Amino acid sequence: MDLEIGLLGCGTVGAGVVSLVRRRADKVAQMTGLRPTIKSILVRDLDKERGVVFDHERLTSRPEDVLQDDGIQIVIETIGGIEPAKTYILEALRRNKHVVTANKDLIAAHGPEILRVAEENHVSVLFEAAVGGAIPLVGPLKENLTANEVTDLKGIINGTTNFILSEMTSRLIDFEEALTMAQELGYAEADPSSDVDGLDAARKLVILSSIAFQTEVHLTDVRVEGIRHVRAKDVRYADELGYVIKLLAVGRDHGGELTLSVRPTLIPKVHPLAHVSDAYNALYVRGDAAGDLMFFGRGAGSMPTASAVVGDVIALVRNLKLGYVASSPQGTLSVKPVVDREDERYKYYVRLLAHDQPGVFARVAQLFGEAHASMETVLQKRVQSGCAEIVIVTHDISSAKSRYLVDQLQKLPQLHSVECVMPVEPVTE
Amino acid sequence: MDLEIGLLGCGTVGAGVVSLVRRRADKVAQMTGLRPTIKSILVRDLDKERGVVFDHERLTSRPEDVLQDDGIQIVIETIGGIEPAKTYILEALRRNKHVVTANKDLIAAHGPEILRVAEENHVSVLFEAAVGGAIPLVGPLKENLTANEVTDLKGIINGTTNFILSEMTSRLIDFEEALTMAQELGYAEADPSSDVDGLDAARKLVILSSIAFQTEVHLTDVRVEGIRHVRAKDVRYADELGYVIKLLAVGRDHGGELTLSVRPTLIPKVHPLAHVSDAYNALYVRGDAAGDLMFFGRGAGSMPTASAVVGDVIALVRNLKLGYVASSPQGTLSVKPVVDREDERYKYYVRLLAHDQPGVFARVAQLFGEAHASMETVLQKRVQSGCAEIVIVTHDISSAKSRYLVDQLQKLPQLHSVECVMPVEPVTE
Repeated sequence: MDLEIGLLGCGTVGAGVVSLVRRRADKVAQMTGLRPTIKSILVRDLDKERGVVFDHERLTSRPEDVLQDDGIQIVIETIGGIEPAKTYILEALRRNKHVVTANKDLIAAHGPEILRVAEENHVSVLFEAAVGGAIPLVGPLKENLTANEVTDLKGIINGTTNFILSEMTSRLIDFEEALTMAQELGYAEADPSSDVDGLDAARKLVILSSIAFQTEVHLTDVRVEGIRHVRAKDVRYADELGYVIKLLAVGRDHGGELTLSVRPTLIPKVHPLAHVSDAYNALYVRGDAAGDLMFFGRGAGSMPTASAVVGDVIALVRNLKLGYVASSPQGTLSVKPVVDREDERYKYYVRLLAHDQPGVFARVAQLFGEAHASMETVLQKRVQSGCAEIVIVTHDISSAKSRYLVDQLQKLPQLHSVECVMPVEPVTE
Repeated sequence: MDLEIGLLGCGTVGAGVVSLVRRRADKVAQMTGLRPTIKSILVRDLDKERGVVFDHERLTSRPEDVLQDDGIQIVIETIGGIEPAKTYILEALRRNKHVVTANKDLIAAHGPEILRVAEENHVSVLFEAAVGGAIPLVGPLKENLTANEVTDLKGIINGTTNFILSEMTSRLIDFEEALTMAQELGYAEADPSSDVDGLDAARKLVILSSIAFQTEVHLTDVRVEGIRHVRAKDVRYADELGYVIKLLAVGRDHGGELTLSVRPTLIPKVHPLAHVSDAYNALYVRGDAAGDLMFFGRGAGSMPTASAVVGDVIALVRNLKLGYVASSPQGTLSVKPVVDREDERYKYYVRLLAHDQPGVFARVAQLFGEAHASMETVLQKRVQSGCAEIVIVTHDISSAKSRYLVDQLQKLPQLHSVECVMPVEPVTE
């Protein structure tokens, strides 16, 4: 028996979904007795050449052909962005269709509302593909790790910035050059700001944190810093000191209070996350029973994303076959405030540009001493045009103290500028 | 409302389960409306001190107190081994109780029978804890990655041997010494053969391969080689050549024909699996849509294993709440023969002990040349008591050719012995 699917959007991900559904239809039919078939595909431009679409998949530019077709039981949304995706998804749910989406922007911004409408209509919304591409993250957090209180999430969850930082590391080129490369290779968009300014990673962190910490968090809760100010020299100094720089998304539950951040961070080379390069993503999870776990794989791309979308579709088909239609509860168990904890302790990497005068370094050291902030490593670097570069890695200090130090350093007349400040991730036990 | 659970066995894992169920009971009640409680615990010795067990959990030495109690809906088995675990589990299933087990020996040997009985009785058997401890592996392979044809599984799935090899690597000690350390620390049993001879890893590979390749495989299908013959010098030479030695479990689907092996293997230091040390486990999965994925975490221990067991219990509680009781189909889709493919190509590490005579190396090189097997690297090593050591890494050759070469080398009068032959894992793309 056919199980009819409607597809919204037929771009990179949508085309992957069309070909993967077709490739796996026999297997799913053998497993469940139901054969998934894509019946209608909503596209903007009916005349555009789409090598992937066959005759029996009807292209339409009218959303109602998908959303109001009573034969369609599952709607897959691959349009992306907030509107019209949100309106379409809500209508599909209200018409008792299950929804599978890869839309991280929408789930990050309106996840709770969408899940509530799904529950009211006794259907499911699945969105494994919205975070981490092919890597199963939503499933394990929502199903397999429920016996844990998750205390820590640490992820490299944006492929574009990871590619740029990997290229900066391996080729010792600056940000702009690496960005241009990423754009030429199709890893970065013409307007790269959502990726390089950390917003894309922040959206994924919102989704993961909501599930892992079983609470509701919002994009505005995340302290976000992008990678535009990371220079090739920072990458080089980090390397000398035994670190690599990654855009790290961190969510922590400090006994009921959350901290959420996306920041370029120095990762020790012995840390498993240090080896996640190019377009790969990884998520580190710490649970009170499970201990440390890591999930690693392709975070984007047509087929990896389709793998997650069609995985969700197959889960739905199995459930429909078993007569199990209700949505699994989202699991918002408690309100956990997101705070800026002044006492969260990190080592910090600090790069200073100083006027090349006698006694500059003594003055900097004195300032650290007065603040009771000890230095773990100091590099004094090549001097050019009357300036000297000082790189310091501190011992663990609170974030309050790190801010105080930067304030004080900026006031020193002997310093030209505080060029770069980044937290340093500890070595895992 | 209480959901009553019976526990079979209260050793290391059982005790972890008792305390974790208790720790999460409120949360599960909040999520599902059902509060999991352990009602009865089957133990051999009623008088043994068990700090973890409270008054309201009834200890019994009579299996029928658990298996024939109609109030108990879920039975957790943590006894281990084949009997009496198998008899108890089958009885529980026939009495329509769901079963959660951590028993890899049993699932590897009798998984298909147990799953069939579960299906006949419309109940579920879940066994996430049987492979990889806390790491979600069964769940992702069975649920999230179903849109893929899995072609490759590569795993470090035995903590004992990984600890021993890690100690041999970091301390440059020999196998026996590292084994003694592992035994003293409780990482290896008094009789370590099931771990060090590779059988434990082979059983887990059987379970993972059955799920990933959706077919039935057996322990006798796996080509198993343990780590007893790996010497400290092999670890050192591997290090010099840019590799670490790991006991690697490999399952491959060559278009419908499987190869399954557990062997000590040289892993390039740049490979993500090279960084899996001590008691950690990891599984690498390649799917045709997802590409390469890796799952990493604690492979054993009381709480990590309990994390997986209680995760399965919570999944069952949710399903019971939603009125969804049928077992998810196992998914044996086709019979895939397990073969010994003569044409499977690997690089090989070969360590030879030669008599210290002129022309020995020339004769070895000639033999490789005649077999059209080229050498990628050669180390000629310190000579002692009239012997010289030759270490060769070949280019890719078929397994047939590797066997032919070893045969020929053993016949050379100039050689004392072929000391060690191990495959070399390629760098992943």
